[in-house]
Amino acid sequence: MTPTITAFEKSPDRGQGLARDTRVRWALEEAGQPYEVRLLSFGAMKEPAHRALHPFGQIPTYEEGDLVLFESGAIVLHIAQTHAGLLPEEANARARAITWMFAALNTVEAPIFELQNAKFAEGDKPWAAERLVLVKDRIGHRLGELSARLAGADWLDGAFSAGDLMMVSVLLRLKPSGLLDAFPNLAAYVARGEARPAYRRAFDAQLAVFKGAASSA
Amino acid sequence: MTPTITAFEKSPDRGQGLARDTRVRWALEEAGQPYEVRLLSFGAMKEPAHRALHPFGQIPTYEEGDLVLFESGAIVLHIAQTHAGLLPEEANARARAITWMFAALNTVEAPIFELQNAKFAEGDKPWAAERLVLVKDRIGHRLGELSARLAGADWLDGAFSAGDLMMVSVLLRLKPSGLLDAFPNLAAYVARGEARPAYRRAFDAQLAVFKGAASSA
Repeated sequence: MTPTITAFEKSPDRGQGLARDTRVRWALEEAGQPYEVRLLSFGAMKEPAHRALHPFGQIPTYEEGDLVLFESGAIVLHIAQTHAGLLPEEANARARAITWMFAALNTVEAPIFELQNAKFAEGDKPWAAERLVLVKDRIGHRLGELSARLAGADWLDGAFSAGDLMMVSVLLRLKPSGLLDAFPNLAAYVARGEARPAYRRAFDAQLAVFKGAASSA
Repeated sequence: MTPTITAFEKSPDRGQGLARDTRVRWALEEAGQPYEVRLLSFGAMKEPAHRALHPFGQIPTYEEGDLVLFESGAIVLHIAQTHAGLLPEEANARARAITWMFAALNTVEAPIFELQNAKFAEGDKPWAAERLVLVKDRIGHRLGELSARLAGADWLDGAFSAGDLMMVSVLLRLKPSGLLDAFPNLAAYVARGEARPAYRRAFDAQLAVFKGAASSA
């Protein structure tokens, strides 16, 4: 059964691929699975019909028959556990790959979430500039630790996995900030992810949605 | 094989159970699994020997034979997937329970992480008081959505699961702030989690470590 995901009708990043549907599209492309997309306006995301699928009124969701999931991490893990190509077969390696998914979403994305709030929710506050330095320091600290672990490897633990998919997706959110530039091995790691054909297809698909919305506006 | 986890030699919350080893202890107790604990000083957590297990120099880790995991979310999921009692058997219900784990760690904990930083990393800044209001508003917004979804249910999706274990653990971090008081059903939900015998055993075990450290100091 072809799953249906939800995405922004008009992405706030103007097609840069930073909205969380890109992660899910990427996982589906890596798994070679077709999917359908239902586009939502900002208003529709907060309506009861969508809240029934996603209690926090966000995108993406994932519908496959009777199954309804939300949270990009959970959706990617579900795809990875039900199709080949995103997790190693061996049990311990599989558990380690999943560990990197959680590290991306809980340890690395948490300070990046603060950066988004510092810019968009508090960018007009008198403390914005001085505080931005502190937030960037906290991100840099995490990036330094991640860079040390990755060292000269292509991927975080052996072959490319859902852990790398999620970590690259989280790090991509830092691209506009330039913070990755201080860590050449992380910048190269992100570029390696972006060069994967499955990522390109996912990126192009979300960009096509934005271009379509822009041209019809 | 009995797994070994790591925990703070002297927990910074003085035994309130808010350090992330409590989540792992709780999962092991729900699964009826014995475990061993290796205590670490703040200095030892940042040493290469521990960094080899945990790239971000934190607790908890989980060692079981050749397997080494970090990230409390990944460890709890591993325990839940390899023992009965923390995830439903039916595939769709299982995927939904895992969704709540990710919702706890990525959607609900993210603004709580900001609150910790606002208090401990930026508590002495001139903007601290004014900004705290904004951060608390963002948390309140999320709590309102979670409260609406939980409504009058005991747990988030049917029987107690690893999703509830993680959500209660994340919400417990708000107890000192009083923010839960505005949402009586969430406060009752957290109390329901705390009342579980497995949680009590986990809490008591981490408290015993703190009391031991305090009495020997």
